[in-house]
Amino acid sequence: MSGGAQPGLMPLEQAQQRLLSLAESSLITETECVALAEADGRVLAAPLVATLDLPPWDNSAMDGYALRLADWQGVALPVSQRILAGSAPQPLEPGSCARIFTGAPMPAGADTVEMQENVELDAYGRVLFRQALRPRQNVRARGQETQVGECVLPAGTRLGPIELGLAASLGVATVEVRRAVRVAVLSTGDELVEPGQPLEAGQIYNSNRRLLISWLQRLGCEVVDGGILSDDFPRTREALAALQGVDLILSTGGVSVGEADFLGIALREAGELTLWKLAIKPGKPLTFGHYQGVPVIGLPGNPASTLVTFGLLARPYLLRRMGVQRVEPLAFEMPAGFIWSKAGQRREYLRARIEQGCVVPYANQSSGVLRSAAWAEGLAEVLEGRTLAEGDRLRFIPLSELLG
Amino acid sequence: MSGGAQPGLMPLEQAQQRLLSLAESSLITETECVALAEADGRVLAAPLVATLDLPPWDNSAMDGYALRLADWQGVALPVSQRILAGSAPQPLEPGSCARIFTGAPMPAGADTVEMQENVELDAYGRVLFRQALRPRQNVRARGQETQVGECVLPAGTRLGPIELGLAASLGVATVEVRRAVRVAVLSTGDELVEPGQPLEAGQIYNSNRRLLISWLQRLGCEVVDGGILSDDFPRTREALAALQGVDLILSTGGVSVGEADFLGIALREAGELTLWKLAIKPGKPLTFGHYQGVPVIGLPGNPASTLVTFGLLARPYLLRRMGVQRVEPLAFEMPAGFIWSKAGQRREYLRARIEQGCVVPYANQSSGVLRSAAWAEGLAEVLEGRTLAEGDRLRFIPLSELLG
Repeated sequence: MSGGAQPGLMPLEQAQQRLLSLAESSLITETECVALAEADGRVLAAPLVATLDLPPWDNSAMDGYALRLADWQGVALPVSQRILAGSAPQPLEPGSCARIFTGAPMPAGADTVEMQENVELDAYGRVLFRQALRPRQNVRARGQETQVGECVLPAGTRLGPIELGLAASLGVATVEVRRAVRVAVLSTGDELVEPGQPLEAGQIYNSNRRLLISWLQRLGCEVVDGGILSDDFPRTREALAALQGVDLILSTGGVSVGEADFLGIALREAGELTLWKLAIKPGKPLTFGHYQGVPVIGLPGNPASTLVTFGLLARPYLLRRMGVQRVEPLAFEMPAGFIWSKAGQRREYLRARIEQGCVVPYANQSSGVLRSAAWAEGLAEVLEGRTLAEGDRLRFIPLSELLG
Repeated sequence: MSGGAQPGLMPLEQAQQRLLSLAESSLITETECVALAEADGRVLAAPLVATLDLPPWDNSAMDGYALRLADWQGVALPVSQRILAGSAPQPLEPGSCARIFTGAPMPAGADTVEMQENVELDAYGRVLFRQALRPRQNVRARGQETQVGECVLPAGTRLGPIELGLAASLGVATVEVRRAVRVAVLSTGDELVEPGQPLEAGQIYNSNRRLLISWLQRLGCEVVDGGILSDDFPRTREALAALQGVDLILSTGGVSVGEADFLGIALREAGELTLWKLAIKPGKPLTFGHYQGVPVIGLPGNPASTLVTFGLLARPYLLRRMGVQRVEPLAFEMPAGFIWSKAGQRREYLRARIEQGCVVPYANQSSGVLRSAAWAEGLAEVLEGRTLAEGDRLRFIPLSELLG
């Protein structure tokens, strides 16, 4: 079999684009100022513009001696000062050189540094330069990295250790960031029990709540834990009404066409919901809509489906709501270390590892548990209508690109 | 020029192996029990072993009807019970079927599920199966994902959202993890000023402290901020003596052969230090040793050198001290989108992006600032003695693999 997606199913890109458009129409606009120490994972609300040159003055790239090149005529130069990093040097006395250390400012009048390994000192402590010198060698020029007024990080940048270090290097102590998105996490189903509780007949432990709350926190979201909604209509309605001031209602399981779907009914009472049948596997049914104007995303309840739909759809949506421009994970074309002989009608995201440079999927790709995902290093994408021989290339998305 | 590293320089792998051996000889052995909600980024101290089967009982993979296949002889079957997820079903009455929903337990006696789309109900509400049935179709068998006694996560696993979700699915509410490594972060140099302070002549802002503290926190370390040590011997000695109960002293800048290296002198007074000249660029000088028995790592002070040496050397060292087995980042062989005509004597780690499937380095690879790293998506590795034409393959390490 070949060809595209099954008719009636929504291609992944279309769902992603719709969600991103919806995110742009409900951007978080409030901002707050936070200290760099509190800013990891936050999103810049305004560009970071350099207010100083980097480096702020010409300085030495080496431990050695600074001189005016024209002064070196083959006759040893006396050392007229000693310049440590952090000190403010005197102008260089004509006909002399300066002892200088890495990072120390160049004295006015000097234009060249020779590293200490390449000089000789004579009996009077004067310096002989043993190798040919080039003007400005071993000198780091003021502003060579960054100049005042340059935009160093655009608005919408997610801040991590590197960006925070860069901000610090510019003397910035606080940054203006978007308020965190507040996400209410709901699970539905009388069969769900929280870990630590005893398991009765017919029940299973709730894994999606833990998965999603930890993941949302890594993305810099503020989580409102809505708990497990029982399959009881009045209580479901009450629980929804109690959610105040959230930016997104995120649920797993239950929002479907099933008869016992009280969450769906309660949400529709004061909002609207659309069921998208996605052309991906795992993760076919996704619900999008709103409840009293608050956006709602309903993810499928099977853990591997939750993982794939959150990573590929809810994650970019949430980041875009905070103004992040780059929401796509890095992906790499890698050779298949397996055979895929039956073309599918939906695009498959296999939990896979890289072994000897090839993509190897977990043997059991059932969407029922997270064991395959815990084993995996990434998601391998098998396009709809595609078969694979060993060595054929497919896209691999590292989990590290999705989880942070 | 071709061939290996410059004589006298230590190959990266050798430095990595030495550090990992040292880490194994000083493993953090203390453990603590933490709730799943507090366990993101922590390292399992003991294997996680399944104490229940997953799924815990046979259940339906679909909304539909459960039956004993032998009972279906072409005559409509009455519906004898209705089984929702979370309920405990009665044994199936012979000659009947049960309405069943996704995730609900199979009633005793039933062996097959047909999805609701494929049945017809007659005038009396009895069920006609319109398609051929296979035994156990749409039934998820008890234990098909995980069986009691199986090791689901080995000791040394770093816990993230997926692993926490998996633990939750097994009913585990707390996990035994290694105590966090306590790392003292020191910066040295009179030229360094903290962001937010005014900059005097000859001074620069300290970016490494922010970079390293945020990064260490992401790795699950406990950070002791040792501040900036001035270039003053008695005060440096005092600051060191004040570090109690840390597992590692991590410094940037200063521990070298420079004349003004008071930290190096103070450390050597009560310990020993070795300077490794690494065959990498940026990041040549790395110091390793101990102070009163506490391991010391001295990273070079140029920000890009700090980044590369921390990511490739200190990060795996720290993870291994917490017992993590897999400390290597994922790396991908990618085509070069640039030319590298001058083979180097040191292995270069270029701050680079992936553009149209090719590796593209930042134009200015100076090690003085973090701007290249903030622009980059990963480190591209150009081996010592190697030149590259466009399309030649080189290893690319996504920053997301190093930062988390």
